Amino acid sequence: MPKVAPRTLSGFMELLPAQQMKLERMMKILRESYALYGFTPLDTPVIESAEVLLAKGGGETEKQIYRFQKGDSDLALRFDLTVPLAKYVAQHYAELSFPFRRYQIGKVYRGERAQRGRFREFYQADIDVIGDGKLDILNEAEIPAIIYNTFSKLGLRRFKIRVNNRKLLNGFYAMNGMSEKAGDIMRTVDKLDKIGAEKVRELLIDEVKMLPCKAENVLDFMAICGTNEEVVAALERYRGMDETFDQGLDELITVTRYLRDFGVPEENFAVDLTIARGLDYYTGTVYETEMTDHPEIGSVCSGGRYDNLAEYYTDRQLPGVGISIGLTRLFYVLNEQGLLSDELVTAPCDALVLPMTEDMGYAVAAATALRKKGLRTQIYGEKKKFKAKMGYADKIGVPFAVLIGEDEMRDGVLSVKDMQTGEQVRLAPDEAADYIAEKIAALNAGSVIKE
Amino acid sequence: MPKVAPRTLSGFMELLPAQQMKLERMMKILRESYALYGFTPLDTPVIESAEVLLAKGGGETEKQIYRFQKGDSDLALRFDLTVPLAKYVAQHYAELSFPFRRYQIGKVYRGERAQRGRFREFYQADIDVIGDGKLDILNEAEIPAIIYNTFSKLGLRRFKIRVNNRKLLNGFYAMNGMSEKAGDIMRTVDKLDKIGAEKVRELLIDEVKMLPCKAENVLDFMAICGTNEEVVAALERYRGMDETFDQGLDELITVTRYLRDFGVPEENFAVDLTIARGLDYYTGTVYETEMTDHPEIGSVCSGGRYDNLAEYYTDRQLPGVGISIGLTRLFYVLNEQGLLSDELVTAPCDALVLPMTEDMGYAVAAATALRKKGLRTQIYGEKKKFKAKMGYADKIGVPFAVLIGEDEMRDGVLSVKDMQTGEQVRLAPDEAADYIAEKIAALNAGSVIKE
Repeated sequence: MPKVAPRTLSGFMELLPAQQMKLERMMKILRESYALYGFTPLDTPVIESAEVLLAKGGGETEKQIYRFQKGDSDLALRFDLTVPLAKYVAQHYAELSFPFRRYQIGKVYRGERAQRGRFREFYQADIDVIGDGKLDILNEAEIPAIIYNTFSKLGLRRFKIRVNNRKLLNGFYAMNGMSEKAGDIMRTVDKLDKIGAEKVRELLIDEVKMLPCKAENVLDFMAICGTNEEVVAALERYRGMDETFDQGLDELITVTRYLRDFGVPEENFAVDLTIARGLDYYTGTVYETEMTDHPEIGSVCSGGRYDNLAEYYTDRQLPGVGISIGLTRLFYVLNEQGLLSDELVTAPCDALVLPMTEDMGYAVAAATALRKKGLRTQIYGEKKKFKAKMGYADKIGVPFAVLIGEDEMRDGVLSVKDMQTGEQVRLAPDEAADYIAEKIAALNAGSVIKE
Repeated sequence: MPKVAPRTLSGFMELLPAQQMKLERMMKILRESYALYGFTPLDTPVIESAEVLLAKGGGETEKQIYRFQKGDSDLALRFDLTVPLAKYVAQHYAELSFPFRRYQIGKVYRGERAQRGRFREFYQADIDVIGDGKLDILNEAEIPAIIYNTFSKLGLRRFKIRVNNRKLLNGFYAMNGMSEKAGDIMRTVDKLDKIGAEKVRELLIDEVKMLPCKAENVLDFMAICGTNEEVVAALERYRGMDETFDQGLDELITVTRYLRDFGVPEENFAVDLTIARGLDYYTGTVYETEMTDHPEIGSVCSGGRYDNLAEYYTDRQLPGVGISIGLTRLFYVLNEQGLLSDELVTAPCDALVLPMTEDMGYAVAAATALRKKGLRTQIYGEKKKFKAKMGYADKIGVPFAVLIGEDEMRDGVLSVKDMQTGEQVRLAPDEAADYIAEKIAALNAGSVIKE
């Protein structure tokens, strides 16, 4: 029979079992961490009507989207989890309670040019809080606090959540009479990290057509740095010149104060005036998250406060605040950098039962005893020589092999072999289960990410 | 601004939060249950090359598939999890260990005619064991044992896993000289439940063109019923007439014996000679699972043993055995029948912290204490009147409200209100956490499905 070459499309991540186990662990931590803060899990279709998905229209998104006809329907695959959330909230408004807090971990699709580390199918892990008309600023501090806790549970320590406020920026541009150029300026300032202050100054003068003194003002403002307290103190010097600025500054001060209440250490967040995010969506606090030792990766978790989640679907004002982890990319980078722990068990099972006898009844009973203690247990039922059986145990990397021969059956025990140390003990099935469970718990005690 | 009506495509399930929580619980149980038997989680792309996905080609599948172009690529959405598994195993053969045991819970796509209870996007929850050249029959008993345990954990009791063996059927048709008509006969016999023996006899004679005596033989064979032991005893009367039949009978006897070893009660499995499944794929044991009180639903979990998982991709013989739960449809039916428990907590959080004070520091600390005990905790930060706050607590159905006013702050306690009984107690934060945690555990002690 002619064969089709089995292959996975470029830009689509498909992991081998041990790697997949690591990703699953990360997803489990995200689910549990998000749930702990009272976010409800949501699941929306991958396919939506193109009209609905592209209600906002235009831009890069439309070019990248997977869009196709099926029968009479013009369909598209979701390219983020925010548009489906907007649709969901507008559609089910009457049945939801506000603030509505949801998390969603799901695949999204963008037909970008394929390149190393860029994916066309990738997981996003989002949390959002949506208010009905109003939303308290406490939420703008809680969101980065959740990210701090989530990253900490994953085992990340060396990261910084960079926080800014769009009102602060808009107010600053207004007080300098630069509001009309704010978009261009922000796009240019965004390059500070990459090209440096000198080049940004040139661009501001030559391309954005700013007076040198105004460009200087912008660069001075963006250069404000130091501890969070020092930054706030420096910003206070601008107070009283623009109402929006003052409001943004008050919000920023409130958010940083709440962040401390939430127990986020000073070293894990920083007020950073260069953060702006999308130009026409965010209206208050904005976030980016940088891995301290890997700034080249860019932000691994971004978001902010917006005023109108669902303006393309409803007249109701639905303000919100949310953040998104680009999970597939984060996983890819952590893996590339060797930051994913190999200590945690990634084998398909904790214990592999190897029966050396014809009859399987005892082996089945042994496996049942181990599973009762929560141990992931596989029975190896293949008729193979002992050496081949042990070879399989080695190859799948199972921590414990449970050997069952005539002797074990007669004595009502199991021979438990620690595959790492080679140590072997004979124990009654229940004792064997406790023995293995304790060692597995110790193996899994560490975190997914090892810095 | 003109609005686009927010809507979800017909045939796509999108649940409200409380319903989604129930589905999530089911998925969690499936994941944990599958893992307990040493299956490793797998995740394959939703989009594959159409050439790869349709390697087998032809049939109903091709008509239902979502297929589209993107750039030069001919793409399609997966319509089951078996074809992607075949691709995966063929592609990664050298890096896998066999038997290879994987589970996958994922969405698949079929552009069927939309009708009530039929979905175009739906979850399948599959387990498969793949051998390299050979695979021990123990696996054919373990698969339904896993389903028994999984369904039991979900809370289902009144179900029956119906087991048959394709060799037994093929052998029976061979000994009657009906091998060529086996396909037509099986398709006709499949209607027994619906149209009864008389009509099936007519069809066998009139349409399949069988001699009346042969049709009688088929009906007699298919009518064999009783306890599993009685069925096996009746089948023993055919022994010695066809080698394939005898082999199938031996396999069936072995599988039923192992099923008992695995602790599957007799009332939850039945040898049923009318089960055949797909005509050209399964080669040994086959399964269907019926909800005893809802036979009209059809099989909620089906599968079987096959000889060649990946014959379209590789020359290697990769036999396997697997089973698939149509999760979305099962969930839909359980929900329609009112079989999903309302006792388990479906609110987005276990405890809702309601601060009555301006300062949020104490409320944040209280929430942190509750979360430390694993309680899903939300802080309600909106500036609303007490009545509106309690109204929100009511509306989201949270089991416990935690009230914080000046008194509580001063005394270092929390006022915990049981929203069901109205009972209110004042406790130190740690005590409050223990108090709530105990009650939440009791609320969640039941199972997802209530029969």
